[in-house]
Amino acid sequence: MDQTQQNALKKAAGIEAAKIVENGMTVGLGTGSTVRYLVDELGRRTQEEGLKFTGVTTSRRTAEQAKGYGITIVDIDDVDRIDVTIDGADEVDSNFNGIKGGGAALLWEKIVATNSDKIVWIVDESKVVDTIGAFPLPVEVIPFGVGHVIKKFETRGYKPTLRLDADGKPVLTDENDYVVDLHLGRIDHPEDLGTDLINTVGVVEHGLFLHMVDTVIVGDPNGPRVMTNSNK
Amino acid sequence: MDQTQQNALKKAAGIEAAKIVENGMTVGLGTGSTVRYLVDELGRRTQEEGLKFTGVTTSRRTAEQAKGYGITIVDIDDVDRIDVTIDGADEVDSNFNGIKGGGAALLWEKIVATNSDKIVWIVDESKVVDTIGAFPLPVEVIPFGVGHVIKKFETRGYKPTLRLDADGKPVLTDENDYVVDLHLGRIDHPEDLGTDLINTVGVVEHGLFLHMVDTVIVGDPNGPRVMTNSNK
Repeated sequence: MDQTQQNALKKAAGIEAAKIVENGMTVGLGTGSTVRYLVDELGRRTQEEGLKFTGVTTSRRTAEQAKGYGITIVDIDDVDRIDVTIDGADEVDSNFNGIKGGGAALLWEKIVATNSDKIVWIVDESKVVDTIGAFPLPVEVIPFGVGHVIKKFETRGYKPTLRLDADGKPVLTDENDYVVDLHLGRIDHPEDLGTDLINTVGVVEHGLFLHMVDTVIVGDPNGPRVMTNSNK
Repeated sequence: MDQTQQNALKKAAGIEAAKIVENGMTVGLGTGSTVRYLVDELGRRTQEEGLKFTGVTTSRRTAEQAKGYGITIVDIDDVDRIDVTIDGADEVDSNFNGIKGGGAALLWEKIVATNSDKIVWIVDESKVVDTIGAFPLPVEVIPFGVGHVIKKFETRGYKPTLRLDADGKPVLTDENDYVVDLHLGRIDHPEDLGTDLINTVGVVEHGLFLHMVDTVIVGDPNGPRVMTNSNK
């Protein structure tokens, strides 16, 4: 599949997800190329159909795009609760467990997600996998002592690499933390791994999103496919 | 006990703890009023006795004090391992579990502590308690979404308050995070509490130091008292 076809699938998934949003809702808006199409469609509905909802974003980029369409964007601490958050993902398996953080925004994304009544992910079909872990798992780590955290990860067989930018400098998150990517290949026991990571001093958060997602909308050549998590 | 007497006890504990440091060691140096006396004594030994050791500090303040005495201070990522870390504490019980973070530096302090072969706390006797928790437990929290974290803590009965400075603005840690203090009165199950806190999205680290401390040196009017943890 070429880039144009993949973009068409992402766009179809974004348009499908926009149908979830109704007047008066508070909606978490994620980040990424698929979410971009979602916000375009929500902007169209705002301008053409008079849709009125309040958005909470996980990045400044999405906030600017949405404000450009006249969508009201507020701070997460200005709302009691988020009705639904729609976001992309780097990988998701058939148990609705996934990996996020390829864009280094996993912390804000996870904070918004945990304060949402419902979570919807929109992905193209290349992101749907049997077992997560081929995508390197991002872990947000405090710069102070990062070398010791990386050494511990190496000892545990997690194959860590510090994420660097084009100039060879460590990538910084919105909180000025570093990102360590774990090249695990496959993650058979995501709960155990998550527990181990979050209990490692120096780790702020990790990119495993477990038992959180309600619905996955997959951009498929035969039309968007909706997977619903019956365990939630 | 007046301030002068309390300072004399802190000084005695600091001088006692300085005896642990030997030539060639890598030593973690904490922060606070008692540690200040420790560093003064290590500085005296450096200048008068030719003591040579390498220090790793948990704050810029201690680093500057130590460098003023000619003590070599390096970054935590420049050493493989720390032989011993000597630090203060806000509370410690007879199981050698304690609370740190009154000075808002708990994260760096915990990172240094977890990379140390041995941990020594120096305190005045007012810090030694039967059950920890009268001292408000500091929790370092990401500013983004802090209101939701505070609400969750309220629901759980943790009696949280956002720590403010003299101008009524949130206190910022070295990582530009906020500090939420939990006014628990007493903490009967510190392990369970620690697990709950670290698994709350938005929490970076908490001030419970459990099963970590080897030795507590208590400034006592009858002379420094050394408590050794036989479970380590």
